Amino acid sequence: MGGDHGPQVTIPASLDCLKSNPDLKLILVGDEAVIRRQMAEGFADYQDRVTIQHASQCVDMDESPSKALKNKKDSSMRVAINMVHNGRADACVSAGNTGALMATARFVLKMIPGIDRPAIISTLPSIHGHTHVLDLGANVDCTAEHLFQFAVMGNELVKAVESINSPKVGLLNIGEEDMKGNEQVKSAAKLLENSPLNYIGYVEGDSLNAGHAKVDLIVTDGFVGNVALKSIEGAAKMIGTTLKEAFGKNYLTKLVGLVAYPVLKSFKQRIDPRLYNGASFLGLRGLVIKSHGGADVLAFKTAIQLAVCEVNQDVIRKISEQVEKTLTLRENA
Amino acid sequence: MGGDHGPQVTIPASLDCLKSNPDLKLILVGDEAVIRRQMAEGFADYQDRVTIQHASQCVDMDESPSKALKNKKDSSMRVAINMVHNGRADACVSAGNTGALMATARFVLKMIPGIDRPAIISTLPSIHGHTHVLDLGANVDCTAEHLFQFAVMGNELVKAVESINSPKVGLLNIGEEDMKGNEQVKSAAKLLENSPLNYIGYVEGDSLNAGHAKVDLIVTDGFVGNVALKSIEGAAKMIGTTLKEAFGKNYLTKLVGLVAYPVLKSFKQRIDPRLYNGASFLGLRGLVIKSHGGADVLAFKTAIQLAVCEVNQDVIRKISEQVEKTLTLRENA
Repeated sequence: MGGDHGPQVTIPASLDCLKSNPDLKLILVGDEAVIRRQMAEGFADYQDRVTIQHASQCVDMDESPSKALKNKKDSSMRVAINMVHNGRADACVSAGNTGALMATARFVLKMIPGIDRPAIISTLPSIHGHTHVLDLGANVDCTAEHLFQFAVMGNELVKAVESINSPKVGLLNIGEEDMKGNEQVKSAAKLLENSPLNYIGYVEGDSLNAGHAKVDLIVTDGFVGNVALKSIEGAAKMIGTTLKEAFGKNYLTKLVGLVAYPVLKSFKQRIDPRLYNGASFLGLRGLVIKSHGGADVLAFKTAIQLAVCEVNQDVIRKISEQVEKTLTLRENA
Repeated sequence: MGGDHGPQVTIPASLDCLKSNPDLKLILVGDEAVIRRQMAEGFADYQDRVTIQHASQCVDMDESPSKALKNKKDSSMRVAINMVHNGRADACVSAGNTGALMATARFVLKMIPGIDRPAIISTLPSIHGHTHVLDLGANVDCTAEHLFQFAVMGNELVKAVESINSPKVGLLNIGEEDMKGNEQVKSAAKLLENSPLNYIGYVEGDSLNAGHAKVDLIVTDGFVGNVALKSIEGAAKMIGTTLKEAFGKNYLTKLVGLVAYPVLKSFKQRIDPRLYNGASFLGLRGLVIKSHGGADVLAFKTAIQLAVCEVNQDVIRKISEQVEKTLTLRENA
């Protein structure tokens, strides 16, 4: 029910995913009447793989997390997360209110023992492959230990979804030299240097779009990560608009734009943010994927695909086991 | 002498500036022999407006600020800053080691009374106009009071160089709602709300490239500001490379690229980072401008032009007066 467009986007995206994933079963959670209306077309062939779970409430996009938690016990997101908790679903995908989704997920699913705080991880495009980044906004203040825990969790996720044995892990900083950075980052660097992770050292903001050749996973606190992510989104939008304006200037440039259209389209597809939609909440005992609120059908489909991939790769179990192993290693050290 | 290219870039850029600014006088500070060699051509017509000040040392790009301060008392940057201090120059422009330049400037010029820490401010391109941002890396940990002081200084600079009466001032955060952010940001918001500044509230990372229509000045701590700036640089580079690759794919796309060349060129010029080169150190009792180390002639020329503009607008005096006024207002409150 969530996001800027609600079922108008989430249900067609669900249909697309059913079509392309023959093993996928979907439970559509929300107002049954609204869902049925939206499902009027196209679902006939997939009735054995789709069910509706009614939920009488809906969390507003600007509702405070604590209010949603207290007053919306039958909201679509709460019901969906409950289904993950009791094993009726393998993952929950939502385009709804991020804060409420995180608070509800944390309350219902609980944390993986050994992890203090959940974190949000997503990917950014790069020239070669892409880069995973966490935390993207769940935590505004992080200690070195939090950053270390994020690295351990992110490392397992990247190993699983990218099929890399030993992802390159970098710590986001304002310079690559040892003396650079604040105390949290410097202490986190020490923890990472003494860990079994493939820690490559400090990386700067321009590495967020550097990709596999340089770094697979970048760790930072939620304030910096969120600002960096949105800065990149803003820059991409500004550059896109400027390019469009240059081709839209007059008849001649429009004609040139027509000629260049196929090239510009292939360029646009390579950095299409919709193909990078979907952020995973890490640190919880269940899988929750957050889609961009403004997602369209293609973008929301990408978020569902991410859930499919993480379920197939058993990411939550792998993270839980790795966290336990890391803790045991430390206790014995 | 500084930057990745030294006098090969700084001296031709100086010549270009002398040509386009009939009132400008330049003092070239560094190894006299090297400077004279580089000045062999083109300077004949401008001999009355250019002088050489010999400096026997040069700070390395990776030298630690404390070592530079201790061991390089006759470095080009130290001599240049000394000249600002004793009134022989109105501003110092350098492409050298940022940390050493800041430490030297702070040591020689001293802080404006009432300002605790210097900050680095620069501009980012946007679709309409551009946005000024500080701090970009001088301070990794900032209190609310530091952020407030940055806002007061940045506000005066924007008023002076953009000829705006009441710049829109935003505080960088991970959401626009009151409850969002860390303690420093929340407390800084309260200080700004109670100030005479035109404070518009929290802005997110995507506002860095939003420009005058939304916000003229964005205030943040040096860690976040530096990461955001470099994230934008990295994203722009990635997008530029992807666009180049799309047009370079095969003979046909190359042909299309040839047809689209004038449009692509005008697009590139609008977001050319060289036209945004030059960051000002604020909070010091003298004007120091830092150019990107990798600056080419056009970029370094932009940094000199920025110095010319800030000298003409008497930015340092205006900031000092405003800081004194703000302090007096507070003491009387």
